[in-house]
Amino acid sequence: MSDVAALEARLVAGDRRALARILTLVEDGDPDVQRDIVARLHPKAGRARLVGITGSPGVGKSSVTSALVTGLRARGRRVAVLAVDPSSPLTGGALLGDRIRMQAHHGDDGVFVRSMAARGHLGGLAAAVPAAALVLDAAGFDDVVLETVGVGQSEVDVAAMADTTIVVLAPGLGDSVQAAKAGILEVADVLVVNKSDQPGAGRLESELRGMLELGHVTGIAVTDGWTPLLLRTVAVRAEGIDELLEAIELHGRAIAASGASGREHARARRWIVELAAGRLRDVLNGPDGPLRRRLEDLAGAVVDRTIDPMTAAERLTDRLS
Amino acid sequence: MSDVAALEARLVAGDRRALARILTLVEDGDPDVQRDIVARLHPKAGRARLVGITGSPGVGKSSVTSALVTGLRARGRRVAVLAVDPSSPLTGGALLGDRIRMQAHHGDDGVFVRSMAARGHLGGLAAAVPAAALVLDAAGFDDVVLETVGVGQSEVDVAAMADTTIVVLAPGLGDSVQAAKAGILEVADVLVVNKSDQPGAGRLESELRGMLELGHVTGIAVTDGWTPLLLRTVAVRAEGIDELLEAIELHGRAIAASGASGREHARARRWIVELAAGRLRDVLNGPDGPLRRRLEDLAGAVVDRTIDPMTAAERLTDRLS
Repeated sequence: MSDVAALEARLVAGDRRALARILTLVEDGDPDVQRDIVARLHPKAGRARLVGITGSPGVGKSSVTSALVTGLRARGRRVAVLAVDPSSPLTGGALLGDRIRMQAHHGDDGVFVRSMAARGHLGGLAAAVPAAALVLDAAGFDDVVLETVGVGQSEVDVAAMADTTIVVLAPGLGDSVQAAKAGILEVADVLVVNKSDQPGAGRLESELRGMLELGHVTGIAVTDGWTPLLLRTVAVRAEGIDELLEAIELHGRAIAASGASGREHARARRWIVELAAGRLRDVLNGPDGPLRRRLEDLAGAVVDRTIDPMTAAERLTDRLS
Repeated sequence: MSDVAALEARLVAGDRRALARILTLVEDGDPDVQRDIVARLHPKAGRARLVGITGSPGVGKSSVTSALVTGLRARGRRVAVLAVDPSSPLTGGALLGDRIRMQAHHGDDGVFVRSMAARGHLGGLAAAVPAAALVLDAAGFDDVVLETVGVGQSEVDVAAMADTTIVVLAPGLGDSVQAAKAGILEVADVLVVNKSDQPGAGRLESELRGMLELGHVTGIAVTDGWTPLLLRTVAVRAEGIDELLEAIELHGRAIAASGASGREHARARRWIVELAAGRLRDVLNGPDGPLRRRLEDLAGAVVDRTIDPMTAAERLTDRLS
């Protein structure tokens, strides 16, 4: 514990190695250490803006992120990028990704890049990503960019944690209908047609424009009175990135004006739910205790088929409601 | 509800359309319908053998599965295959996969193949896969093969649900050290070196043999007094499949002899835990109620930074322990 206290002091003082170490503890540390970190840093955080970037593989998410970081740096903001890959349990790949991503911003002290792979049990990311974002927030970054790699529900969940969520699409790949099916469009505050110099970009933009006009039924959600903005970029040439930065600002002001805390409240609620579910799992899988003993009895009854698993789960949690 | 009762009668009578419909309800139905299905079918199940097949992409899992199905059919057993893809939220891909897999066994009434993609919230598969396996068990299949596509923690979790878990490796791709890192070897009851006619197969086998001899430290677990068997196959030519079938039999007899219910008990326990965590989530995300109101208050306190999220989660669940 005093280890965490020492790291915390160094983190707040801007020590990068302490930051990396705390993130590692958040990612694979034991629940007690995680609890300690979150409890200590939560009062110190709350200043950073969270920007989510998601989209199917091949649309150029990394290029958009990199161009965005360059633009934010030019505006004097300190930026942390958290690249989340829910499908990979291997650190090796994640570290390689870090190095490639870092190159463009190598030697820039105002940029920090970290990859996070899926670890531990199912649902682990839903609790680990907000904790990592909290650490980066407490470390003093102005922007925390959450980039998700892939197309699963986990990506959508991660992207939805942000203050502003950017969904990147590109002509040819993962068209708008597929994106709608995957539920990705629902979380978009800003829609970006990247690689907009390529064939089919106009058609993709028209499709999305049509979906925006039809509103909710097409999978694009209008929330807090905000209709998602639709932009075109060619991220590898930094085209459209100024407009994207402006869109993020605009969305930030719009949610602030419409009762800022709605989104923060929803994020806090979601995080608490995941932590509570994780805590229930820990208690049930943990050392002997009354709840653990009850679980063992119920598992025995399920094996004997005197009770079904659903009813067993209800009996286990009925004291909650 | 009476809808489910009618489907249940048809399922037990061997109706394939009823089976497909119930699986769809399990996969994306609402919690009440799922609860009803599990409660109804659980007393009728418990006869099928669950065989898990996992391994990195490219090792030939599908070929091993297909050859295994042919071998099981030749022995007069009715086989269901549940191909689980935790990374894909899209039904389209899953259905295409179904069709490709079905071809070899087209027209064979004793084979049923179904793909299952990640749906709903994080952790959904941990509850949905055992439910689907239960449905297939109740439908009268002798073997339910759980094939997982990919390399994440979810795959390992799914594979570990089986009575016998087969981990497939191949020379060149995803070597033994990578597999060990990914935690895949830990769940192996049978290790298969597929594509064993290709260069590097001998070296891979030696590596695995060395890891087996060193035991637990290398990521291969010896549990219930069972040391994982190591086999070579060329699945596309059905070479080594008889030996694989024998290994599955052998492992089944070994766990039966060493107090059969250990594994079933562990599986029941894990399932109850996931269902309980899911139920907690449902209650918290559900309509107004005392627990939901408490959550809203706590989320407000987290936004105001008068409490941290970890402590909030503890307050929410402290009545449990």
